[in-house]
Amino acid sequence: MTTASICTIGDEILIGQIVDTNSSEIAKSLNTLGIRVCEMRSVGDDHDAIISTLNSLLSKYDIVLTTGGLGPTKDDITKAALAELSGAKGFIINEEQDRIMRSILHSRGLDVLPANALQASVPDTCDVIPNRLGTAPVMVFRFDESKYGHPAVLYSMPGVPFETLNALPDVLEDIRSHFGLENIYHRNIMTYGLAESALAKKIEDWESALPSDIHLAYLPSTLTGVRLRLSIYGGDRSTQERRIDEQLTALKSIIGEYVYSDEDDTLENALGKLLKASGKTLSAAESCTGGEISHLITTVPGSSSYYLGSVTSYAVSVKEKVLGVPAETIDKYGVVSSEVAAAMAAGVRRVTGSDYSVATTGLAGPGGGDGVNPEGTVWVGVCDSKGCVFTKKFNYHNDRKRNIERFAASSLHFLLTLVKNDLNI
Amino acid sequence: MTTASICTIGDEILIGQIVDTNSSEIAKSLNTLGIRVCEMRSVGDDHDAIISTLNSLLSKYDIVLTTGGLGPTKDDITKAALAELSGAKGFIINEEQDRIMRSILHSRGLDVLPANALQASVPDTCDVIPNRLGTAPVMVFRFDESKYGHPAVLYSMPGVPFETLNALPDVLEDIRSHFGLENIYHRNIMTYGLAESALAKKIEDWESALPSDIHLAYLPSTLTGVRLRLSIYGGDRSTQERRIDEQLTALKSIIGEYVYSDEDDTLENALGKLLKASGKTLSAAESCTGGEISHLITTVPGSSSYYLGSVTSYAVSVKEKVLGVPAETIDKYGVVSSEVAAAMAAGVRRVTGSDYSVATTGLAGPGGGDGVNPEGTVWVGVCDSKGCVFTKKFNYHNDRKRNIERFAASSLHFLLTLVKNDLNI
Repeated sequence: MTTASICTIGDEILIGQIVDTNSSEIAKSLNTLGIRVCEMRSVGDDHDAIISTLNSLLSKYDIVLTTGGLGPTKDDITKAALAELSGAKGFIINEEQDRIMRSILHSRGLDVLPANALQASVPDTCDVIPNRLGTAPVMVFRFDESKYGHPAVLYSMPGVPFETLNALPDVLEDIRSHFGLENIYHRNIMTYGLAESALAKKIEDWESALPSDIHLAYLPSTLTGVRLRLSIYGGDRSTQERRIDEQLTALKSIIGEYVYSDEDDTLENALGKLLKASGKTLSAAESCTGGEISHLITTVPGSSSYYLGSVTSYAVSVKEKVLGVPAETIDKYGVVSSEVAAAMAAGVRRVTGSDYSVATTGLAGPGGGDGVNPEGTVWVGVCDSKGCVFTKKFNYHNDRKRNIERFAASSLHFLLTLVKNDLNI
Repeated sequence: MTTASICTIGDEILIGQIVDTNSSEIAKSLNTLGIRVCEMRSVGDDHDAIISTLNSLLSKYDIVLTTGGLGPTKDDITKAALAELSGAKGFIINEEQDRIMRSILHSRGLDVLPANALQASVPDTCDVIPNRLGTAPVMVFRFDESKYGHPAVLYSMPGVPFETLNALPDVLEDIRSHFGLENIYHRNIMTYGLAESALAKKIEDWESALPSDIHLAYLPSTLTGVRLRLSIYGGDRSTQERRIDEQLTALKSIIGEYVYSDEDDTLENALGKLLKASGKTLSAAESCTGGEISHLITTVPGSSSYYLGSVTSYAVSVKEKVLGVPAETIDKYGVVSSEVAAAMAAGVRRVTGSDYSVATTGLAGPGGGDGVNPEGTVWVGVCDSKGCVFTKKFNYHNDRKRNIERFAASSLHFLLTLVKNDLNI
């Protein structure tokens, strides 16, 4: 199996100023190519540390990917280290990157400073993969086995996350062709409502009967549920697709009720696709989730075509005045109740004129329960296109932030199930 | 200077399943103690890799902190590696952790399985810092200089972030006393509205005149602006406080207009404190921010005492019907305009009866501008307690997600400035 390691360069990681999200994204992608990431490291902006770390990693692994250390004010350290490591005789300007750099600065109305001009200059020992969104390119250093005892490739990528992610597909393509990697085919299915361990228990017979060339990965997340990824190594594409399809059919016959998408999706994306395709509209009324459901829905580009809006009714007066929840309902059943969730969902649907609606009322904490409901309780109400209301209660045991996330995800999943039923899908 | 490194243990990091947030939090805390973090690493659940990595780190640094590798299903690997590394003769049950473990499982209605019981069992070579929120304790291995050529301490911490963070203060206290660290005093001030580089330029004379025992750190974040941290090493507390106060006074005379808090704060927290103290209330009307402002406001515990709620008016019909924005205003000035932002702010204040309000209308992208405003434009409207409206335009050049974050932060800052003026603060 081809092996890799990922190394971030820069003091900002070591002082805890930023969380390293690049390494996780790169690791996920390498994993998808069938490459094993054996180690990750972070070093500071220090010439000797960079050289000794990279030498140590290149002698152990086939591929080393670095991010960072290439800003206009400090790229000299990393770039000089890479030049030394690779035995460069000098630097040459990469014309394509030079053009990109000038056009980016020009579009922002900025002058090309000497420090910027240097960014398109690379050691004469590397290949270049242009960075279309930034000023510093990806540098590719290929070593034959004389240097580290085995062929090794070093990719030096920019550290700004959107630049890193944008350059990643080109880097992966270079890795795939350079290492002649096996053809791997992946399919994802998204589940919600079962924890990873419970899901594993339910499908253990199916999983243990998987052929040895088909692999299953569990990828859990608070906001999207557990993603199951099936991967098949080698063989031609049509056979791969047929064999994975067979396994997915078998899998869905066991856990079909928990599956909400056949693709790598989020709840708000899956919901958006249904609404876009059906021409139906949606609104939300939030109490304890405080805007998080609306925020998630509107992270989807194009959501304005089906999402009309929401009311966050933190105060009882807003529940009554804006959403028309009867004061008697609140008095009789309490704010955190099935009846109030139902009235909120019906209210926001009426006020906005949407086809569907979703509403939440609950206790995210801290501060304990309300005497009837423990902290971590949420009542969710959803309205279908005929105006019928359904409610459901969920209980979680996390801190405020995580409770809000779980409330929002459970609400979106409950809504998604309703919309599917309503559309006969 | 005392040196440290941080090492995460677990395959879940190497396959990119989770982003490592622990290391950044630990690094920040060590930095605050005046300890230099020189390197971070991640290794998988692999006996030999754990031992060789830890040996390598312990031979280079004074302190090594590990997180992870201690779950009930896999703690054998890490714990066995630590036992071997430290030359343990056997394992002993830590009674305090055993009690905590049983009480946690009991409160969740779970039985104590053999795998759980093992978690309170530690190599006979370590000290224990109990983990009050989880089943696996912190293990502390102290090595004299005979093993690594210098005294070194290894802290093995649980990997679940809320357990890690909860145990961190005890670990830091152990580090401080064990290494007899200097007394360091820190003060933060929060700024908004100037990028790090522009801020640095403005205060460069003041910064270069700082006494050598006072250090300044820039800690920028999209949602909170740039945090400036002043640290002073050594000396008694009252002298430290006085000297830092003097520097802060001088600093605020230069950049006072950008300072929104004298503490380590967020915009929504600073706003919450003012509203709580003054008894005033707040509401929000969001278009392009889609619920993010409301979500941020409600992440603050106790926000229900001053936050009445919000309307997310994604559709024009909701702007008109719920917020009462006149159709003519929208026709005449366009949805993304000062006039519509003002009408939304006034509308939500009227509908909810709040003292203050904030409103946004803009283009988060993708999809380009609207012919008048480029993508990344937001108009923000704010209302003071007398009902006077003020508006302001901001422009950003990020992707949808980051544009929404910047819109929300700029809105909260604009609102905070208004509230301070209104309250004569």
